[in-house]
Amino acid sequence: MRPSGRQPDQLRNITLTCHYTKHAEGSVQVEFGDTRVICTASVDERVPGFLKGKGSGWITAEYGMLPRSTHSRMDREAARGKQAGRTQEIQRLIGRSLRAAVDLTALGERTITIDCDVIQADGGTRTAAITGGFVALCLAVDKLIKNRKIKASPVHGQIASVSVGIHQGVPVLDLDYAEDGSAETDMNVVMNDAGAFVEVQGTAEGHAFRRDELNAMLDLADKGITELMAKQREALDAARKG
Amino acid sequence: MRPSGRQPDQLRNITLTCHYTKHAEGSVQVEFGDTRVICTASVDERVPGFLKGKGSGWITAEYGMLPRSTHSRMDREAARGKQAGRTQEIQRLIGRSLRAAVDLTALGERTITIDCDVIQADGGTRTAAITGGFVALCLAVDKLIKNRKIKASPVHGQIASVSVGIHQGVPVLDLDYAEDGSAETDMNVVMNDAGAFVEVQGTAEGHAFRRDELNAMLDLADKGITELMAKQREALDAARKG
Amino acid sequence: MRPSGRQPDQLRNITLTCHYTKHAEGSVQVEFGDTRVICTASVDERVPGFLKGKGSGWITAEYGMLPRSTHSRMDREAARGKQAGRTQEIQRLIGRSLRAAVDLTALGERTITIDCDVIQADGGTRTAAITGGFVALCLAVDKLIKNRKIKASPVHGQIASVSVGIHQGVPVLDLDYAEDGSAETDMNVVMNDAGAFVEVQGTAEGHAFRRDELNAMLDLADKGITELMAKQREALDAARKG
Amino acid sequence: MRPSGRQPDQLRNITLTCHYTKHAEGSVQVEFGDTRVICTASVDERVPGFLKGKGSGWITAEYGMLPRSTHSRMDREAARGKQAGRTQEIQRLIGRSLRAAVDLTALGERTITIDCDVIQADGGTRTAAITGGFVALCLAVDKLIKNRKIKASPVHGQIASVSVGIHQGVPVLDLDYAEDGSAETDMNVVMNDAGAFVEVQGTAEGHAFRRDELNAMLDLADKGITELMAKQREALDAARKG
Amino acid sequence: MRPSGRQPDQLRNITLTCHYTKHAEGSVQVEFGDTRVICTASVDERVPGFLKGKGSGWITAEYGMLPRSTHSRMDREAARGKQAGRTQEIQRLIGRSLRAAVDLTALGERTITIDCDVIQADGGTRTAAITGGFVALCLAVDKLIKNRKIKASPVHGQIASVSVGIHQGVPVLDLDYAEDGSAETDMNVVMNDAGAFVEVQGTAEGHAFRRDELNAMLDLADKGITELMAKQREALDAARKG
Amino acid sequence: MRPSGRQPDQLRNITLTCHYTKHAEGSVQVEFGDTRVICTASVDERVPGFLKGKGSGWITAEYGMLPRSTHSRMDREAARGKQAGRTQEIQRLIGRSLRAAVDLTALGERTITIDCDVIQADGGTRTAAITGGFVALCLAVDKLIKNRKIKASPVHGQIASVSVGIHQGVPVLDLDYAEDGSAETDMNVVMNDAGAFVEVQGTAEGHAFRRDELNAMLDLADKGITELMAKQREALDAARKG
Repeated sequence: MRPSGRQPDQLRNITLTCHYTKHAEGSVQVEFGDTRVICTASVDERVPGFLKGKGSGWITAEYGMLPRSTHSRMDREAARGKQAGRTQEIQRLIGRSLRAAVDLTALGERTITIDCDVIQADGGTRTAAITGGFVALCLAVDKLIKNRKIKASPVHGQIASVSVGIHQGVPVLDLDYAEDGSAETDMNVVMNDAGAFVEVQGTAEGHAFRRDELNAMLDLADKGITELMAKQREALDAARKG
Repeated sequence: MRPSGRQPDQLRNITLTCHYTKHAEGSVQVEFGDTRVICTASVDERVPGFLKGKGSGWITAEYGMLPRSTHSRMDREAARGKQAGRTQEIQRLIGRSLRAAVDLTALGERTITIDCDVIQADGGTRTAAITGGFVALCLAVDKLIKNRKIKASPVHGQIASVSVGIHQGVPVLDLDYAEDGSAETDMNVVMNDAGAFVEVQGTAEGHAFRRDELNAMLDLADKGITELMAKQREALDAARKG
Repeated sequence: MRPSGRQPDQLRNITLTCHYTKHAEGSVQVEFGDTRVICTASVDERVPGFLKGKGSGWITAEYGMLPRSTHSRMDREAARGKQAGRTQEIQRLIGRSLRAAVDLTALGERTITIDCDVIQADGGTRTAAITGGFVALCLAVDKLIKNRKIKASPVHGQIASVSVGIHQGVPVLDLDYAEDGSAETDMNVVMNDAGAFVEVQGTAEGHAFRRDELNAMLDLADKGITELMAKQREALDAARKG
Repeated sequence: MRPSGRQPDQLRNITLTCHYTKHAEGSVQVEFGDTRVICTASVDERVPGFLKGKGSGWITAEYGMLPRSTHSRMDREAARGKQAGRTQEIQRLIGRSLRAAVDLTALGERTITIDCDVIQADGGTRTAAITGGFVALCLAVDKLIKNRKIKASPVHGQIASVSVGIHQGVPVLDLDYAEDGSAETDMNVVMNDAGAFVEVQGTAEGHAFRRDELNAMLDLADKGITELMAKQREALDAARKG
Repeated sequence: MRPSGRQPDQLRNITLTCHYTKHAEGSVQVEFGDTRVICTASVDERVPGFLKGKGSGWITAEYGMLPRSTHSRMDREAARGKQAGRTQEIQRLIGRSLRAAVDLTALGERTITIDCDVIQADGGTRTAAITGGFVALCLAVDKLIKNRKIKASPVHGQIASVSVGIHQGVPVLDLDYAEDGSAETDMNVVMNDAGAFVEVQGTAEGHAFRRDELNAMLDLADKGITELMAKQREALDAARKG
Repeated sequence: MRPSGRQPDQLRNITLTCHYTKHAEGSVQVEFGDTRVICTASVDERVPGFLKGKGSGWITAEYGMLPRSTHSRMDREAARGKQAGRTQEIQRLIGRSLRAAVDLTALGERTITIDCDVIQADGGTRTAAITGGFVALCLAVDKLIKNRKIKASPVHGQIASVSVGIHQGVPVLDLDYAEDGSAETDMNVVMNDAGAFVEVQGTAEGHAFRRDELNAMLDLADKGITELMAKQREALDAARKG
């Protein structure tokens, strides 16, 4: 039995609130149960040095947690003067995942920065950030088209992410904090709408996992991501109409 | 005429949403119009080195802005590796202001950290942070009493804050971003419920201000803070009942 | 009775020694009693990035304390690898205060940096720095005129600063270290030669201050600043003749 | 055809030189073709703060590259003043992977730090580091047993790692630099001697990978790691005899 | 001919002003011509971690330059967030040199920190700092004896320092800034009152120096240091009487 | 008797292995007994800001130690976020020493960076780094000539370095770690092939050294450096033949 009472293949309640803040070109609050992340997409009409003059745009991501988004207060990274290794690992993952769905040349020489800030953490913040970040990215692209900066969307696929794991011997979907701490294996999966993998990151916490366990987890991820993509499309449709 | 159409002595819509996040001992989202700040109060059963063994508690504050809380995206302070001078100035102000209402000895040897994170900025973030931070502090103290860590509240006064300024020659209350940029003088006032001043910080932006202008601004601040304190009491009453 | 035996409205001995060091375009040692600060003004024929090509100059300030300028040795900020929040707050205050007296467009596209380094601290270092920094600024402007970089002085007013406070219930002028630690309220006031306020920063240390106390302190500040401005003019006159 | 002329399932020449330096408790130079990494294991009779008094030991890893281990010179991280995100990600991976093979309670309250420094980079430095780091760890444990600090080895499994990928549509084993840059998919796999997965980290560089491609890559990884483990046992046997 | 008109073996005017500031246990302003350095000695009743419980004291030094002590303004190291290599090299040299004259065990478990801050630079700041730092150290030791913290002085020798060089083919003593920039060789020498060397640091700037040139420079250093030591004794005698 | 059994004027076994790594324009492993340092020379077709457009090239050096190159593990400087004072002092010394043998104008507007990374430390790492760094520099210059970037070598002299000291009252050559810790005096000498000094850095560790002791040490350095230069020429000859 899962601590939350959910079925092994059941996602938490998923909410995507578009236009959550007013300044960003795209903004979304994404909730995976009690995990809440604000994702904003900011357009900058410049590219990093390594891309200057190459006719290509860039998508990058930054990630942060409010100090008291967690059970006990964490040090503020700005006050400590550096980002933790975990933070850098997550923001690199978000950036890579979203770039996999974008034709950077079609974007033109501009950068879209996806900021993912965790307001409340209850497990799965990086998968929520990727899922919400994709929606924020689409909203920012909508604005670029509306403002006639680009003619067609450079976003050629849909990206979503979910965690899977093995909890008390049972493969489960979308781990919350209570499960995450006691899971034997934890895997974050990022997929596109063709059902192919963009990232697979599995870590054995307690005991190493066999090939059949890996396959069971990937089946769950596939099911969960299909549901998340439906939620993303719903949210975008509503935002575009509204 | 003010850009917002408000009267010179009129506050923006003020909202205080208690228990905004679930982990912190006290948490509030405070809105001064479009300015939104999440304030959390976290209790730590330790004190900083300079207070160890002295029988006194401590109240401190940290302040941050989400990178895209502003019109154009700011650099993330955690990524730049240091907090700006403005950030440090504001968090020192919040901490001093709230300590003015607390008997630190009665608090006992523990620290309450008030984190104020700006989700959306539209002028007056520091005054909103002090006003909301006071409510978060009270909620955290409620919890300490409920958990029998302390018997009576060490909070002996009420603290709120508002900005005043001179805009197009007219003294006005609670400047928003549109006014802030063009104000000739900007003053942040922190008062207690006895109507006395805890902090007065006035800066001539355009031209220096005379004594009569100072007095007109302080009258406005007095009126605004009285109204903010009513809002604080309402919010705390509702949270304590609810 | 004040620890120093001074009258409530009496300044400490004020000394301004022009041309204190030989390399800077302007340099002054300012003494407020035992508080000694070296102020230098350095001209750089460039402006910060945000002003490039806008036809405006810039005045900025930096502040530091020698590690043993204080009763017990402080860590050297260069060795700790960052400036304290207090340091940043003070240097921002000095810069803002001096800019209030300068027509930045008339200065032309150049920067004057005022370095204020405390050799010996005995209370009121920031007010001494502003008062001495103004003199160093004028000397550097004299040099720009002499070297035909500019035709007329862009300095259109006079700036000085003093602290006031309430000590044992009595409003007093120009607090020294012995008073500063036990004052109930501490206020730094920056004024111009028209008698208007450029900065008012009052902090209740012990108990909040009432409007009548605020007014008594501002009266003292006005008197003290008038005297400081006479000292500044004397020092500048002597330096210009000498 | 692979740039190196290797078969798709063929490892590069693998060399493990034990006792490569004299001070460390365990030291190895590992070569995967032209990739050369020095791995040392250092024993410290203390544990990090979060483990003090808990009866558990710790294994951690640090990773670095000599500035000119690469085709063009990289900045030295010590001179830049911080470790890149990639560096932190790799050292976290090495540490997690090796901890999966060690009973930390049986290790006792001490830390073994695995330093992996890349002398020459030609692709696959992190997999070489894990494979060589495991051997250095075993040598350090041998020394602890020899010096009667512990009675039996806390290492309960064998760990090795290899990269796999899809190059020009073909799944290949142990990518070198020439392949790495042009691979469509890159996956690092860490396994134990029971044939189970400790880490699986796959990233689609060019196009997302399907489940059948994932399976083909995992088959190759399994074959490669079996061969690497034979090399590890050979090297350890020789070092223990020699 | 030297730019200053001095003889090759002639020091600049040397002044040592004891008790230059009031808080430090020992303080001196040292002038070598236009080079002015404030040296303070601060006693701390603790030792660094590596000496705890070993019955030994410690002497250490820190060095800094006011940003406008030089011809053109340098960046403030506290603002840049780190000390330059040159700064660290100099403060290590000062510390080593002064430790050579002190019996650290007789000092007891306390640290004396010598802060050397350059107010005005005109060549030879490090040799002035060592020469003045020695006097500040002696004054601080006097205070320890007077306060009955130690019975006898742990200072068992006298230390002074001067620069020598080869300027336009001629060996010269005590280089000023004008000579320093064009000298072919620059050497800093630290000696004790037995005429032996504590530090010799010679650097060929233009052309390498032969053994006979080295000897000529060392002869000059010997002469200069003898004179500096007389100045030190005079200053200490006056301070001890006064 | 020396701990190693060597004669007072005897160097350790010296080995210079050219082309030690494959990417750098010049690379050498230098061994002074058990001290092993990898020296690489990297050519960059740019110069630092202060040399731009001046028609001059630049030679600079960086130095590092692998964390476990030493008896007990040192902190990794990249992880600590800054280079120690000792590191900066050494890399400044290496750069200055090598620049003394190069006509920077003849080098053209390019920079050669010498990275010296200590794999195993047993005393004398800085002198080994200079001696090996010179060879790496020559190999990189060979490549520039071969690639027709420059016509003739800008290296106009030969540079090598050795340490000397006084151990148990006896002047000795090329101190190893066992001697270094107990030496009364330690001196690093850098000379050119004309027998003149480029750097002389002597430090009294235990007791100050007299002029006759200095001379005895310099005689030993002269002998040792002559032998090291023969080794450098041999290694370069062999490498050039191929």
